[in-house]
Amino acid sequence: MNIAIKNILTVLPGETPEAPQTVKKTDLYIQGSRIAAIGEAPADFTAEKTIDGTDKLLIPGLINAHTHSYMAFMRNCADDLSFMDWLFGRIDPIEQKMTDEDAYWGACLAILEMMKSGTTCFNDMQMNIMQTTRAAKESGMRAVISRGLVGSGDDEAGRSRLKQAYAERDAFRDCDRLTFRLGPHAPYTCDEAFLKILAKEAEQENMGIHMHLSESVTEIENCRKDYGCTPIELAERTGLFNRPFIAAHCVQVTDSDMDIMAKHGVSVVTNPASNMKLGNGFAPVPEMMAKGINVCIGTDGAASNNALNLIHEMSLVTLIHKGTHRSPQCVSAEDAFRMATINGAKALSLEAETGSIEVGKKADLAILDLKCPSMWPVNNPIAALSYSATGDEVETVIIDGNITMENKKVLTLDEERIYFETARIMERIG
Amino acid sequence: MNIAIKNILTVLPGETPEAPQTVKKTDLYIQGSRIAAIGEAPADFTAEKTIDGTDKLLIPGLINAHTHSYMAFMRNCADDLSFMDWLFGRIDPIEQKMTDEDAYWGACLAILEMMKSGTTCFNDMQMNIMQTTRAAKESGMRAVISRGLVGSGDDEAGRSRLKQAYAERDAFRDCDRLTFRLGPHAPYTCDEAFLKILAKEAEQENMGIHMHLSESVTEIENCRKDYGCTPIELAERTGLFNRPFIAAHCVQVTDSDMDIMAKHGVSVVTNPASNMKLGNGFAPVPEMMAKGINVCIGTDGAASNNALNLIHEMSLVTLIHKGTHRSPQCVSAEDAFRMATINGAKALSLEAETGSIEVGKKADLAILDLKCPSMWPVNNPIAALSYSATGDEVETVIIDGNITMENKKVLTLDEERIYFETARIMERIG
Repeated sequence: MNIAIKNILTVLPGETPEAPQTVKKTDLYIQGSRIAAIGEAPADFTAEKTIDGTDKLLIPGLINAHTHSYMAFMRNCADDLSFMDWLFGRIDPIEQKMTDEDAYWGACLAILEMMKSGTTCFNDMQMNIMQTTRAAKESGMRAVISRGLVGSGDDEAGRSRLKQAYAERDAFRDCDRLTFRLGPHAPYTCDEAFLKILAKEAEQENMGIHMHLSESVTEIENCRKDYGCTPIELAERTGLFNRPFIAAHCVQVTDSDMDIMAKHGVSVVTNPASNMKLGNGFAPVPEMMAKGINVCIGTDGAASNNALNLIHEMSLVTLIHKGTHRSPQCVSAEDAFRMATINGAKALSLEAETGSIEVGKKADLAILDLKCPSMWPVNNPIAALSYSATGDEVETVIIDGNITMENKKVLTLDEERIYFETARIMERIG
Repeated sequence: MNIAIKNILTVLPGETPEAPQTVKKTDLYIQGSRIAAIGEAPADFTAEKTIDGTDKLLIPGLINAHTHSYMAFMRNCADDLSFMDWLFGRIDPIEQKMTDEDAYWGACLAILEMMKSGTTCFNDMQMNIMQTTRAAKESGMRAVISRGLVGSGDDEAGRSRLKQAYAERDAFRDCDRLTFRLGPHAPYTCDEAFLKILAKEAEQENMGIHMHLSESVTEIENCRKDYGCTPIELAERTGLFNRPFIAAHCVQVTDSDMDIMAKHGVSVVTNPASNMKLGNGFAPVPEMMAKGINVCIGTDGAASNNALNLIHEMSLVTLIHKGTHRSPQCVSAEDAFRMATINGAKALSLEAETGSIEVGKKADLAILDLKCPSMWPVNNPIAALSYSATGDEVETVIIDGNITMENKKVLTLDEERIYFETARIMERIG
């Protein structure tokens, strides 16, 4: 569809990749799935739909670089517990009883929340195949999907999960909004031999990797005991870092770990709410930025956050490091904006397609209402996104050139049905 | 007006003050300004208005225990700056040019934001008299107002501000939603002799105190240099702690400082966003709680936060201390709920009137929509308020028995006019 968005305050990239974002009032034209022009209409352009941008803000759709969508129905069911009580007392028993259909409805609820708060693309690690993928496809979302892989050496279980991952990828080849990565779960659920197999598989299949790394002190201690090295060093020596690599968490990393990641172009996803909530602490985000590591932002799953709202995470990532570093200049709103947009796109190898408002890129966009107390007066929209917005300012979402949400109503999902089904799941297995 | 709220999930106090909150579906009846009954209707009750509580959550209105409302138009105008550049480069020049009328519109914008996110009572320190007070009175809000007092010894400037504070209090005697405190600004703007005068004045006038205390390292260093003691010790020795006392911030406090505050029943307002954003760090909230200090939550002003959304602060207060203490059990959602409600009421000496849903108390209430991704499924509403809500779930607000907001529309303020005026202020002086 040809869409024109007129007279809208728009966040555009700076003149160079390092320059601050530019915010200016302009017009934007969408043809098919892509941004066709900014400012002047393309030749022979006839808008089938025109959106009035008065008192609105146009931003690139946000990218949630680490989540587990299926968990959304578990939100607020296991809080203020020790890690062991949280995992083995509450989450694990629910997961054991969860069906594929439950995972699908969980993913639908997650996508509803993400879309409503301006996210247009997410990077997911799931334990049931086909379900989050199905929800993403139906909802119009852009997504990168990893089936969580767990295994020891060349064991049957690991091989079988890998086959599932390939089967899923092949089943969704018709949907170009979906891409797939291999998802070794973590150093404590995959042994070194299995990680080496996955590194080779990823090479052969030309796939990127998405893995939990260096989340907790216990993980580091066990890795040192088992392998005599840090999780980052283990990932490097198994060859995994030779592939495009997304490392979720990296809370407990050494200076040398950061150098290794910088050298290999590893992207780090910081998940501030989850890392605090589970008592893991604060990732050294300013230090990783200083080393040139591409840092982006994730929500993690709703069992450990409990929201999937990237605006909330932007607020956290800008505030907490100012607190830990006693510096009001640490991790700026501009930094958080990049992390939630273009850095996420880079991490997912989607930089050419999404993450900024540029002619030729996919039209993945969010339109926010400015006339609300959290955004008014319009003194600095980039600062507002991190420091005063809640996420509920998002009115309209466009993904791949399709309007998936309009006037705060998601058009691609049956919201009432999702509420009905997810409540029923928790009644049954919660 | 007689109001009935039917069939609504309600957060009620536990059986003892220490017991966890109870969440149950019930009916609530309001007569005049007060809660007349919970469960069974009072005899001869005829509802003039009935609210259907299906899929809604009823909570006591939140209490923002420290803010500077007039600053709301400055939101997002001075971020990611050093403290000196923030204050002297941006905020101070705007304040110098600000008129009383500007302060009034700033307060209106602040109240709009607070009410929309479920706050029904706020504790304000203002620099222009009559303006925030006027906005609070017109909007139907409950408020505790302090005129910020600055002075040296018995100087004319200090005396004149004190007279202003009394004049304002006397001018609003007709509005029982408003109470007044004396507001010595801080140890670095009031000298010891002036603080002693204020302690005596507060005693004579039977007023409480609201003061910034121990916010930054610089404040502590200067206080030690000037007085050979900490700001907390200074406040104690001037006699200020003999009055009901609200200490805003208390980021940099010693163990002995905390003992002093506990001994005198001082209430501490933690302002997590502001303390992080200005690079001051994290208040030792878990330690203060352990000492039995009454801790409540504030947003601070919009120049240093930049939101006035108590739900956001609840999220921060539950998360950041889990991060600093590496403990998922540190500062629970239940703790945050108390801080934002009954603890705030205690701090403001309004415990008998507000802060919980109990028969005989003022009807200060917020009704939230549960059928939205941030609150669904309804696994634990108290956890949801801290860990997944954004504040935009609030649909209806009742203060002093009056419906001030309904279906997300504030009935007592002219929203469009507030947007118009606050934008114009920043065009003129921003």
